[in-house]
Amino acid sequence: MKNLIVASTSTIYGGTYLDYLLETVSDLFAETDEIIFIPYARPGGISHDHYTEKTSEVFKKINKKVRGIHTFENPVEAIQHAKGVFTGGGNTFVLVSQLYSNRIMQPLREAIYKGLPYLGTSAGSNICGLTMQTTNDMPIVYPPSFKTLGAIPFNINPHYLDPIPGIKHMGETRETRIKEYHTQNSAPIIGLREGSWLEVKGDDITLRGIPSARVFEQDEDPYEIQTGTSLSHF
Amino acid sequence: MKNLIVASTSTIYGGTYLDYLLETVSDLFAETDEIIFIPYARPGGISHDHYTEKTSEVFKKINKKVRGIHTFENPVEAIQHAKGVFTGGGNTFVLVSQLYSNRIMQPLREAIYKGLPYLGTSAGSNICGLTMQTTNDMPIVYPPSFKTLGAIPFNINPHYLDPIPGIKHMGETRETRIKEYHTQNSAPIIGLREGSWLEVKGDDITLRGIPSARVFEQDEDPYEIQTGTSLSHF
Repeated sequence: MKNLIVASTSTIYGGTYLDYLLETVSDLFAETDEIIFIPYARPGGISHDHYTEKTSEVFKKINKKVRGIHTFENPVEAIQHAKGVFTGGGNTFVLVSQLYSNRIMQPLREAIYKGLPYLGTSAGSNICGLTMQTTNDMPIVYPPSFKTLGAIPFNINPHYLDPIPGIKHMGETRETRIKEYHTQNSAPIIGLREGSWLEVKGDDITLRGIPSARVFEQDEDPYEIQTGTSLSHF
Repeated sequence: MKNLIVASTSTIYGGTYLDYLLETVSDLFAETDEIIFIPYARPGGISHDHYTEKTSEVFKKINKKVRGIHTFENPVEAIQHAKGVFTGGGNTFVLVSQLYSNRIMQPLREAIYKGLPYLGTSAGSNICGLTMQTTNDMPIVYPPSFKTLGAIPFNINPHYLDPIPGIKHMGETRETRIKEYHTQNSAPIIGLREGSWLEVKGDDITLRGIPSARVFEQDEDPYEIQTGTSLSHF
């Protein structure tokens, strides 16, 4: 049965990397002390080694060893034998391109469907949806497809951002962008604000964390859902 | 010789559609009173007809007739015979997909190189660069390529946005996103703030309008350029 934490962000304002999620992560990975980290999204362009090291330091606090997927000779086998996987944030286009070029998109999907405990933050959460088409990132590389893991039956907009009152900038708000998505596509979108996450246990999907989330369905007005709300009906 | 206006936005804060640019547009299209409008980017998902009508109303003020490219039986011939073209803003992924599916990316490039007066705003400016890879838009459709017109020898980030002081949102700033672009690509990026535009006359490229612009070159610190600055050295 599926077992995922799909978080809006790795870091909340005023906090440090993963601190607000650490207890949740400890529960998710309760049955293993070895986690494979997927550093492909490279936030700010940092190296795979550096990103893995940064993650490893935090995971030490909950007594977990972290090894980067990039250090395995055969990443497909690594995924197939993994006891826990964490995909960090960064650029979703870079992440998806690397998942395809290393041929681990499908094996990762299969492992998740077989019960692999999976943690995603930001770009690592985006890929849990049907497609990466509601990422906020710049298309700095051209991936072979926008299709992603489909571990949940809708798409995520991580770092969901409400319109900023009084702003004089004329660029589209996040809500406008998501509405544009729905002129071309039908999948529901969950706008996950920073500090919230989805808990996926088998077929149950529940909103957790502090802020409410915003749900966008095609041809419907968007609406808020509070923490504890089930999204299993999608 | 090339003759383009490449504007950050169609509308500045407190203004109406194209009002701040109208004199410039009138000069650009001085030698024709018939403009072909490319409405493919569909801001907010509005129809091609509706978008063309909205643009037509503004162009009446400068005595120009506007016809949407979508009303021509043969859009390639329409571009080849055009005396002036305006591509409006909206979603760059949708725009680029439509330019490819209607096979007018290459004819439009050729016409621009032969001297076709061209106005772009927002997404319509993004496509003047080498690629669309520094768009701010969501990837709501999958285009066959990110390559665009290459009418200028760098890329544009329209609606360039400075970091907002005091914001508690942890998503990447525009500058961070552009720096991530440069971990994967080498083309310079011009961050065009709303109210500024590039004037392209032959091989001369000059920043015009009120705000300064921000230039990002790979492995260099970003820097500001003032209106009137030439970018012809790129």
